[in-house]
Amino acid sequence: MDDQERVTEDETPLEEEGYGLNRREVAAILDAVDVGDRDALIELMEPLHAADIADLLEQIDSPDRRRLIALYGVEFDGDILSELDESIREEVIGVLNPDVLADAVRDLESDDVVDLLEDLEEPQQQAIIGALDDADQMVVRQALSYPEDSAGRLMQREVVAVPEHWSVGEAIDFMRGKEDLPEQFYHVILVDPRHRPTGYVTLGKIMSAPRAQALQDMTEDSFRTIPVDQDEEDVAYAFNQYHLISTPVVDDEGRLAGVITIDDAMIVLDEEHEEDMLRMAGVSEEASLSDNVLETMRGRATWLFVNLVTAIFASLVIDLFSDTIDQMVALAVLMPIVASMGGNAGTQTMAVAVRAIATRDLTGQNARRIIRRELVVGALNGALFGLAMALVAAFWFGVPMLAVVIGSAMLMTQVAAAFGGIVIPLLLDRLKIDPALASGPFVTTVTDVVGFFAFLGLASWVLL
Amino acid sequence: MDDQERVTEDETPLEEEGYGLNRREVAAILDAVDVGDRDALIELMEPLHAADIADLLEQIDSPDRRRLIALYGVEFDGDILSELDESIREEVIGVLNPDVLADAVRDLESDDVVDLLEDLEEPQQQAIIGALDDADQMVVRQALSYPEDSAGRLMQREVVAVPEHWSVGEAIDFMRGKEDLPEQFYHVILVDPRHRPTGYVTLGKIMSAPRAQALQDMTEDSFRTIPVDQDEEDVAYAFNQYHLISTPVVDDEGRLAGVITIDDAMIVLDEEHEEDMLRMAGVSEEASLSDNVLETMRGRATWLFVNLVTAIFASLVIDLFSDTIDQMVALAVLMPIVASMGGNAGTQTMAVAVRAIATRDLTGQNARRIIRRELVVGALNGALFGLAMALVAAFWFGVPMLAVVIGSAMLMTQVAAAFGGIVIPLLLDRLKIDPALASGPFVTTVTDVVGFFAFLGLASWVLL
Repeated sequence: MDDQERVTEDETPLEEEGYGLNRREVAAILDAVDVGDRDALIELMEPLHAADIADLLEQIDSPDRRRLIALYGVEFDGDILSELDESIREEVIGVLNPDVLADAVRDLESDDVVDLLEDLEEPQQQAIIGALDDADQMVVRQALSYPEDSAGRLMQREVVAVPEHWSVGEAIDFMRGKEDLPEQFYHVILVDPRHRPTGYVTLGKIMSAPRAQALQDMTEDSFRTIPVDQDEEDVAYAFNQYHLISTPVVDDEGRLAGVITIDDAMIVLDEEHEEDMLRMAGVSEEASLSDNVLETMRGRATWLFVNLVTAIFASLVIDLFSDTIDQMVALAVLMPIVASMGGNAGTQTMAVAVRAIATRDLTGQNARRIIRRELVVGALNGALFGLAMALVAAFWFGVPMLAVVIGSAMLMTQVAAAFGGIVIPLLLDRLKIDPALASGPFVTTVTDVVGFFAFLGLASWVLL
Repeated sequence: MDDQERVTEDETPLEEEGYGLNRREVAAILDAVDVGDRDALIELMEPLHAADIADLLEQIDSPDRRRLIALYGVEFDGDILSELDESIREEVIGVLNPDVLADAVRDLESDDVVDLLEDLEEPQQQAIIGALDDADQMVVRQALSYPEDSAGRLMQREVVAVPEHWSVGEAIDFMRGKEDLPEQFYHVILVDPRHRPTGYVTLGKIMSAPRAQALQDMTEDSFRTIPVDQDEEDVAYAFNQYHLISTPVVDDEGRLAGVITIDDAMIVLDEEHEEDMLRMAGVSEEASLSDNVLETMRGRATWLFVNLVTAIFASLVIDLFSDTIDQMVALAVLMPIVASMGGNAGTQTMAVAVRAIATRDLTGQNARRIIRRELVVGALNGALFGLAMALVAAFWFGVPMLAVVIGSAMLMTQVAAAFGGIVIPLLLDRLKIDPALASGPFVTTVTDVVGFFAFLGLASWVLL
């Protein structure tokens, strides 16, 4: 244990906003674990939100984590498991006393249990399902029968649905008479005799409307249903695009199967963003800070390998012109500038394109116009920075033609970067390959190859 | 007008998920605009959600946009303005007939009007505020008095608050007697005699509880308040971390000022993600697909300029070794590989670090442990790819010592990339500079300089 690590660096700006963990709390908790003071530990943990306890477990190292869980014992709350990052979750479940685990899981809502189970190995899955009572076991097994990352996995099955012809008063009496209303619900869903949703009314409107009013006259325009097998990414898009709060999920025959609420959609949106951002930087999506060294290495090596191949490919282009470089070593000094500027311009355009494809702002409809605009921007920036670099090269090496060569090469590379940066993500998307994942290597290969070829080719043509 | 652009490329995978616009609808709408058929236009637009109409206006070009708005006329809905991207919004407001604009704005909730006004120039702001009735003007001006991007700007002022000692029955009677309940509310907020929130109860629980039950016995654990001047980024973090649905906002004295709902927090979260992703790629945050060429160029040029300076700096390192390259041109062929692999490893680590800082998973608490882990990962990947590249170089150029040099240089550069990739974002964050914005240039400068220096320095020492 490294005590110094805990108490120094007191004013880190990361923790000052009043949410999340505070450094002093974490230090006190670890001290309690060190001296084995269970009462102090429980008192310190008691005010913390499950999400913050999960963050705490993620931030400390594995031996501390095990000792904390052992000392904390039966207090372990199921919500902590839900909040934990996958990589840590498996470790924690493995360490937990089976009785404590069973208690923790029994407290959870069924959709949280499903979320928990999804990422576990088969034996751990079975142990947890076994801890549930029969009714919950059935619900959970049914949910797991839907495709991974589908609306069926995301939805809660607890809904409040009433016949579409009811009045406000009937709905109120029904709800007040019902014993087990869902923990979370914002709408009363209207269903036809075959249990197909036809509209919904907000609780707020029901609160303020006369008892005799027909529910059908108070439905919301925002009503739409989600098929049970729809991808959760599309669900999150719909919530974000249409400002939905909760939405009924329907089975193949259009019957009400459950409901998805915005907080679940927000989690999906957040995860999708994280995935896109990391993928664009060439990090495999499973990566997290709590992964161990080998997993982290594997998550990075794939893309480094692809990059090695493309970098060697670009070097083959340089090799074509090794005689030229041999005659003018200044070319070797300057050529990385051309490639680097191209790579950066390509990355910029690519990021804008990947984001616009994800938000569906870049479509077949406006693709040509956007490509034209990017080409113009590339040409203008190419002219601007080509000129600047030409001046630098002229002063640096005193060879006017070298200035012309690097300026022209920069211009060409910037235009190629603009073109590749937008066309490659669009093509990948059309081929149903995630543009965030695969665009990077292709774009930088294009800019490197064009950059080296334009610069060295022009140089060998003009200068020698 | 380019008709071909509209009808070709029929099977773009972007539009098939059933949400958003579909290509045929867009083509039909543009055809109606072309022939000036107002009835057809209105009929085609009628089923569309305001968010989809906004997307449509963003996707078509400026002349089409103006003609569509002119033809659409008085039907223009205020919600479309709310959904529009800022850059387009100003143009649309400028084009709208003033009476239509006034009507459109009067239909909006006050928080939407505030959101609309924030990004407009002064004269447009005044024109819109002038169109509101007196009470709304006051509300809007008050909201605008809060700092930009603060909870005060984000909140709605319409709340349902009752004395904390009330019973379920009293709350129900109060709500049923009230004429203007908010459009959107999910909790009844309990306040003390000085109007300070002390807890909240969900509408769902009120629906199912006996009339005599005290509201105080049914409050939610998730209750917390948000100061009116808190940054909206922290608000979004709290909603995401604690799965909040709606949360009271309080003024300096702790009195209830308004309420923020999760749908607003979701929009902020989405915007913050977009900003981070684009910033990491060196695109200024204001960028959008609808920007014109000059704005787009400006949004990219800043970072390209920074990159030009750092690339020249890296070239100065190469220049130090120009004699070495002159003696062995293979060095010029291979050196970009070392720099490229370093840049990519640095970007990977940086992306993980920037994301972890944003989600507060990387803190002063665990920084040293994570840095150690990244260094080990960098060393392992460096050894792996250094060895691979050494073999490639040995076969390619047949100089065993060149293989040793490039392998060692790769190892060093990978370790430097790991170090820079995590330490630079942490340092910038501590200096209160957005790590997403500024890390990129620093990290690639480190990897370029270390890469060229290690490779060429080792080469001049060992080979010559």
